[in-house]
Amino acid sequence: MTSEIGLIGLGTMGAALALNIAEKGFDIAVWNRTTQVTRDFHADAGDLAAKITPTDSLGDLVAAIKQPRAIILMVPAGEAVDAQIEALRPLLGPDDLIIDAGNANFHDTNRRARESTGPIMGIGVSGGEEGARHGPSIMGGGKREYWDRVSHILMAISAKYEGTPCATWMGEEGAGHFVKAVHNGIEYADMQMIAEVYGILRDGMGYGAPAIADVFDRWNNGPLRSYLVEISGKVAGTTDAATGKPLLDVIVDAAGQKGTGRWTVIEAQHLAAPIPAIEAAVVARNLSSQRDARAAGEALFGPAPRAMADGTLSIEALEQAMIGGKILCYAQGFAMISAASDAFGWALPLPEIAQVWREGCIIRSDMLNDMASALSDDPGRNLMFAPYFAEHLKNCHEALRQVVAQAALHGLPAPALGSGLTYFDAMRTHRGTANMIQGQRDYFGWHGFARLDDGTTGQHGPWAQ
Amino acid sequence: MTSEIGLIGLGTMGAALALNIAEKGFDIAVWNRTTQVTRDFHADAGDLAAKITPTDSLGDLVAAIKQPRAIILMVPAGEAVDAQIEALRPLLGPDDLIIDAGNANFHDTNRRARESTGPIMGIGVSGGEEGARHGPSIMGGGKREYWDRVSHILMAISAKYEGTPCATWMGEEGAGHFVKAVHNGIEYADMQMIAEVYGILRDGMGYGAPAIADVFDRWNNGPLRSYLVEISGKVAGTTDAATGKPLLDVIVDAAGQKGTGRWTVIEAQHLAAPIPAIEAAVVARNLSSQRDARAAGEALFGPAPRAMADGTLSIEALEQAMIGGKILCYAQGFAMISAASDAFGWALPLPEIAQVWREGCIIRSDMLNDMASALSDDPGRNLMFAPYFAEHLKNCHEALRQVVAQAALHGLPAPALGSGLTYFDAMRTHRGTANMIQGQRDYFGWHGFARLDDGTTGQHGPWAQ
Repeated sequence: MTSEIGLIGLGTMGAALALNIAEKGFDIAVWNRTTQVTRDFHADAGDLAAKITPTDSLGDLVAAIKQPRAIILMVPAGEAVDAQIEALRPLLGPDDLIIDAGNANFHDTNRRARESTGPIMGIGVSGGEEGARHGPSIMGGGKREYWDRVSHILMAISAKYEGTPCATWMGEEGAGHFVKAVHNGIEYADMQMIAEVYGILRDGMGYGAPAIADVFDRWNNGPLRSYLVEISGKVAGTTDAATGKPLLDVIVDAAGQKGTGRWTVIEAQHLAAPIPAIEAAVVARNLSSQRDARAAGEALFGPAPRAMADGTLSIEALEQAMIGGKILCYAQGFAMISAASDAFGWALPLPEIAQVWREGCIIRSDMLNDMASALSDDPGRNLMFAPYFAEHLKNCHEALRQVVAQAALHGLPAPALGSGLTYFDAMRTHRGTANMIQGQRDYFGWHGFARLDDGTTGQHGPWAQ
Repeated sequence: MTSEIGLIGLGTMGAALALNIAEKGFDIAVWNRTTQVTRDFHADAGDLAAKITPTDSLGDLVAAIKQPRAIILMVPAGEAVDAQIEALRPLLGPDDLIIDAGNANFHDTNRRARESTGPIMGIGVSGGEEGARHGPSIMGGGKREYWDRVSHILMAISAKYEGTPCATWMGEEGAGHFVKAVHNGIEYADMQMIAEVYGILRDGMGYGAPAIADVFDRWNNGPLRSYLVEISGKVAGTTDAATGKPLLDVIVDAAGQKGTGRWTVIEAQHLAAPIPAIEAAVVARNLSSQRDARAAGEALFGPAPRAMADGTLSIEALEQAMIGGKILCYAQGFAMISAASDAFGWALPLPEIAQVWREGCIIRSDMLNDMASALSDDPGRNLMFAPYFAEHLKNCHEALRQVVAQAALHGLPAPALGSGLTYFDAMRTHRGTANMIQGQRDYFGWHGFARLDDGTTGQHGPWAQ
């Protein structure tokens, strides 16, 4: 009973997290379903092995941890988590805490919190293996008192932004996993917007991969500075060893997904929270996987992309469009979090969410620091209305218009940037066009409409019911 | 025991359907929870009263129908349906058939089919009250033998397209309600595209409502001929009695929804079926309801819409863009039905779906007849690849590009038309841009990618795992 904490599941993420915990000075007991994995992990732990207690059974694991215990689960999301909890709980004392650190759907985390016979929490961990090993962004959910019991460990292992730990309690039940899902949705949109600009550079402007790498590298020294822009430059700048070609040019253009982007879109639909740039990004991945249909389409209609005449778009216009698209995508994501906070009776801390995303996670960027400041000023305000970002948008929306328009004219799909722009325009149009839809709905379904002049509702046109 | 069929629930839709059934010559027994409603319905039925047997209790209703019985439920979707089934089933014989004709979520219909202790089916009924009264479009789901028992009634009461009944069996369990949901999703997109063009005419080109009515009226005599274009002309041409202004100008621009569009989007996400125009339409409704935020946006940024210079867009270009947008939206909807058919092990009859939508339902149009022909030739082919529609798209995509580009440049949100265009361009681009996304995913998460040259999967870049 010497270990401070336990961990179950020594896959890529679990192993990295365990080493991180040990490195920060905490004794940790670990267990994996396959004992050899546990042995190998311990044998390979080097200097950190002394802080790690490998165990051969769940009983041994539990016995190795000091009470009240805290045990992290890092097993595949879904049924494996329920099975692990079921096996583990009977061995635990009434105050022992189970921490699900996998990629759970937050509805499952809600359910587990309600059904659990003992303390349980769910934490979202972002940053991939590298983050887990050296400092992830951590989004905690569950009772506050549970968070307080382990926050010294979670903060110690988390990424730091100028010394501030990127680990925060988000709220009850599945709040942490919910925030992680929105993070992933934003990640999809960030990546898709980069892919769209990549396509414009490649197919519209005739840039080769090395030249595209230069563009991303330069942008990474400006307002777009972020992990994803940085690695896009690195990916574009990489040469394939086998062929000597740019690596990008040998990678198949069909994007996979693990479902968290989809969850975010589905939840946004339930909340009636508009996140069109994120939706467009998820749809774009689905379309990317239909390679045979796309080949048939090109054969029938001819290739969509057309070269742009010199000077049609400048690199600076593309950069400004990316800045605008990014602000609008994040505005959508934070507005969705705000809607969820109201709908679920959570008090999700929007400024702190922006803060924990500043380092450790995939969408980490300088801009998130400014977002944290803007959200601190007024957490309930749409980010696009915060003075700092409104000023940015005023400066860059013309470039975003140009890019979206030229992409449309030149057959270069830019659905996420386009959705960002239509969101911006819809959100600054007091008198929209849904009056036509309400007129139609009343005509065919007697649904009724409200009047602009006196606000009366349930009004009807002079057509028969 | 003289009535051919029974009906429970004499609300707007139920009453209209009961009168339709009686008018077609079938004796029908009816019951409503509130007896006075039943009495009033019968008293107001005029000549049809003789065909209608009003009953005061569920027992009386059941006793009035000849065996084996068939009873239509027309009660609010959701728990009310389950409660009604629970109350009714014990009074029925083992061969008596319950027909849920409400707007059920097809997952509920699936569940009810599996759990039911007796025959049950779910049918989607489209066309609003007018359709229910004089001929709806009917999409049946459940065991084929149940459909065969009542199809003579359902075909008799359905709309007719050149004599062919718009009523078809779609497949097992919730297949009928599923097809109805996709119908409604397409309806959302059709309506949204009309609203977008309305906005371009109003805010971009300075047309008043009467002039806009003329445009829609003219279009209704061309390829866009459809119920929704027809009523859009009527709505735009209507004067408000109270103010003398065009009615459109006094209707609040916040669109309601009853959730079926949302269901379609959620299901498409589960199926990974791209329906971006429908998604954009649902998002646009959600945005329309945020009137306060839109007012704040306009105050901060200035109004989004800008007037177009004369000659920027022609009415003919708008018409061509609408034709293109419509084809692409339907292509998405039918492709989603095709994906569902595979995923759920249904054999959804795509040509027949287009056929039953030709009359009676809200999206009825001439173009659906051509779609039925195209789908008959090759049900598995994306509609945009069918020769007839491919030819249309070749002719109109340049206009669609112009409209989307000018809308972007002039601050006129056109998300559904824009999503239609990006879908078209993505579906005719064999070499897309998701290779960048796969490169990023491999860089940060070691997800692996496939190589274009030799097709090997699980490849990695020269970065550390």
